[in-house]
Amino acid sequence: MAKDFSTKEEDYSKWYNDLVIKADLAENSAVRGCMVIKPHGYAIWEMMQQALDKKFKQTGHVNAYFPLFIPKSFFSKEASHVDGFAKECAVVTHYRLKNSPDGKGIVVDDDAKLEEELIVRPTSETIIWNTYKGWIQSHRDLPILVNQWANVVRWEMRTRLFLRTAEFLWQEGHTAHATAEEAVEETEKMLNVYADFVENFMALPVVKGKKTANERFAGALDTYCIEALMQDGKALQAGTSHFLGQNFAKAFDVKFTSKEGKQEYVWATSWGVSTRLMGALIMAHSDNEGLVLPPKLAPTQVVIIPIYKNQDQLEKINHWAEQLKADLESKDIRVKYDNRDNQRPGWKFADYEFKGVPIRIAIGGRDLENNTVELYRRDIKEKQTVKQEGLTETIANLLVEIQQNMYNKALKFRDSMIHKVDHYETFKDVLENKGGFISAHWDGTSETEEKIKQETKATIRCIPLNNIQENGVCIYSGKPSKQRVLFAKAY
Amino acid sequence: MAKDFSTKEEDYSKWYNDLVIKADLAENSAVRGCMVIKPHGYAIWEMMQQALDKKFKQTGHVNAYFPLFIPKSFFSKEASHVDGFAKECAVVTHYRLKNSPDGKGIVVDDDAKLEEELIVRPTSETIIWNTYKGWIQSHRDLPILVNQWANVVRWEMRTRLFLRTAEFLWQEGHTAHATAEEAVEETEKMLNVYADFVENFMALPVVKGKKTANERFAGALDTYCIEALMQDGKALQAGTSHFLGQNFAKAFDVKFTSKEGKQEYVWATSWGVSTRLMGALIMAHSDNEGLVLPPKLAPTQVVIIPIYKNQDQLEKINHWAEQLKADLESKDIRVKYDNRDNQRPGWKFADYEFKGVPIRIAIGGRDLENNTVELYRRDIKEKQTVKQEGLTETIANLLVEIQQNMYNKALKFRDSMIHKVDHYETFKDVLENKGGFISAHWDGTSETEEKIKQETKATIRCIPLNNIQENGVCIYSGKPSKQRVLFAKAY
Repeated sequence: MAKDFSTKEEDYSKWYNDLVIKADLAENSAVRGCMVIKPHGYAIWEMMQQALDKKFKQTGHVNAYFPLFIPKSFFSKEASHVDGFAKECAVVTHYRLKNSPDGKGIVVDDDAKLEEELIVRPTSETIIWNTYKGWIQSHRDLPILVNQWANVVRWEMRTRLFLRTAEFLWQEGHTAHATAEEAVEETEKMLNVYADFVENFMALPVVKGKKTANERFAGALDTYCIEALMQDGKALQAGTSHFLGQNFAKAFDVKFTSKEGKQEYVWATSWGVSTRLMGALIMAHSDNEGLVLPPKLAPTQVVIIPIYKNQDQLEKINHWAEQLKADLESKDIRVKYDNRDNQRPGWKFADYEFKGVPIRIAIGGRDLENNTVELYRRDIKEKQTVKQEGLTETIANLLVEIQQNMYNKALKFRDSMIHKVDHYETFKDVLENKGGFISAHWDGTSETEEKIKQETKATIRCIPLNNIQENGVCIYSGKPSKQRVLFAKAY
Repeated sequence: MAKDFSTKEEDYSKWYNDLVIKADLAENSAVRGCMVIKPHGYAIWEMMQQALDKKFKQTGHVNAYFPLFIPKSFFSKEASHVDGFAKECAVVTHYRLKNSPDGKGIVVDDDAKLEEELIVRPTSETIIWNTYKGWIQSHRDLPILVNQWANVVRWEMRTRLFLRTAEFLWQEGHTAHATAEEAVEETEKMLNVYADFVENFMALPVVKGKKTANERFAGALDTYCIEALMQDGKALQAGTSHFLGQNFAKAFDVKFTSKEGKQEYVWATSWGVSTRLMGALIMAHSDNEGLVLPPKLAPTQVVIIPIYKNQDQLEKINHWAEQLKADLESKDIRVKYDNRDNQRPGWKFADYEFKGVPIRIAIGGRDLENNTVELYRRDIKEKQTVKQEGLTETIANLLVEIQQNMYNKALKFRDSMIHKVDHYETFKDVLENKGGFISAHWDGTSETEEKIKQETKATIRCIPLNNIQENGVCIYSGKPSKQRVLFAKAY
């Protein structure tokens, strides 16, 4: 299984790509920049979707679906949005093909040219706010708390499976409110929903913060984000939540009659996470033996593998394993019993290890005699022999422990990788030799931010929420600063 | 709520459109032919998806995701597929926009023309079989049982919400097998999964059958279908399952090494249902008071509405209703308690009736005294006063009864609308004046089928499975026939 598999230490980037391919998560397609998400990868994404969708609904949101295509003119309506989003897009210009006159294949039918080109959505604010115009008249129509699960396309030149692809899957929430306060509250609420999901399901600690003006979403007044750290010391933006003010309401003329009878523009938020989270999940926990999945997101949490010398033994094990499987399933534990006879136990061990199954149970003839099984924990790669008695509870507890252990490990690593730095030379040195987040003073200007980025490739990942206020001087300009911000190289 | 709402009898087509709009199911968007699926409509679609997805997984299928775009040349590879699918498509020709030289808005950047145009998928056989080529080497790699939930685009000139839209949502299963027998078995299995879903969840009886050569999927050797009847006597194809033979394997050169060590082409199936089912659901059961939903697909199965004269009464009802809600939810019944104070009970009654909630519970001051409630059944529009004691069981049983009653009613109607006809004049008369399915002899030729279609707009919906074999003469040509087939006008 793990043949020809690079180690993290040798080549982190190659290790990641190999892992995605060899663990059957995704692969490149015949269409440049577009990936195929394979069944194992998609099953993990479905676990993510289910958990997120439940949280969205618990916080009062409903799902809906808006068109894939957006009329080109819509993008010009919100001035800053057009610069951020309307450029690298897939453009539909025709709606028909015809047989080639030379009889070879098919060609675009020039008679079927669209009057106005359609853009494959890179994000849906414009088409959704154009729709909301028809939904909102009075304060009684507010708030609108809608989410959409969809595919989007951004024509990226350099792509990497899950992390940056031309087409990706995501959810985008788009809410409409009567007041700025309520919209800001929603923006923060959804940031917390994301943080809760990434920490408690993905077992990955995040820093919650705000983006600087430079890094803000095109059309937003404020972009909140959660930032996670990967094992190579690079940061990854795991989710964003935007306070859009009245920008889109003004662009699409969406007003409501307030309780006081006045016509006012509606306040907006939008927030999203994508299949990029798959990249984060893979990079955050995996090792040189393959994928390591937190139990809450593992499509298979427990695999049972029989080790037998003859048919008689196999039948006894089958009987025992089917019973255990039923017991575990009655506790909502996702379990697979693999008694295929065309692969050896050793091959299966390696395969499930590579694919990140949290717990492996092996049972053989001697175990049957001794009423024991062999348990293997993927996260710490440790075997132990345990009693069959109380096994269901043992496993249920172990899954909780593994989830917690993975989070703790990632937290310890992350915390060890936040470096307080007060001089630009140290900044460059830490960035080059240690990586991680650098907590440093910054003068608050886009110019300084831009220069640091040009010189070091580090960007300001965020200004942490509830940031400590302290006087200092900008590491770059030497100008006064009131707080530290987090810099890092990022995916 | 039901103001300006047409009746079925006045104008069936307008009744349907009004219903979709006024029940907040869907609406037309700014993009020609593309709909917005509103939260209430999407919630029903989600119920459908959940039920279907569960059935797919129970029958051994897994989900995956393939690219939205398909290179133009792929369509030319399977000869009959290209004629059926590559014509009315959205064509992506460019990947960048730029600011207009005149400073007004944005224009397509001519420097960003794609070398090969990309087609927005109208169906995914080609891109998927191109991918399967990399997944299949040996008989050990088979079968592949993959499903995809996705959006697809077919450029339709005349569109209707849910029934025919340029973009729609669907699932498409694509399986690969070592033998023809196994592929045929899969094709039939999935037809049965669809029939089971439509009958038991949508409460809509279907005829299972095969399409004639004329109506077959482009690229299939056999197309199986389920056909349902709408209240206006027109048929609707609710799902299809295709036996594709080795056509796509040959087109994309997908071979496997058999157990005997020989290189053979892989056998294929594909099968799909779409948001069109929403149209079927709406048209099959609804009435002049709005939508009627079968309990199994109703996002809200029970709504509780308080009727109160003062705050004291409301508080008592609140207390009681929250308890009932908790009891019902503990039985997995989806319930909503609507004690909003900005709408009157009568308005709420009409609103939930229009939106199709199967059971309404009203409770007022007198009910509190008498330990009763008023139950209203949406399907038969009947009220009854029942005891609070055992209410949870009463409701659980009633939901089962409503589901069954809706199916029985639809079945009775459908059966009353299957007309055995032996003469072409009668055929035309029945078609014109009664509608429904016409069971008639046909000589088996595409020419006859085509002529009947041209003259009457009726098509052969299917040759029913396990059809009775009987000698007769074709109603059109007078030539000998061995079986009757089902004709109808169709959506």
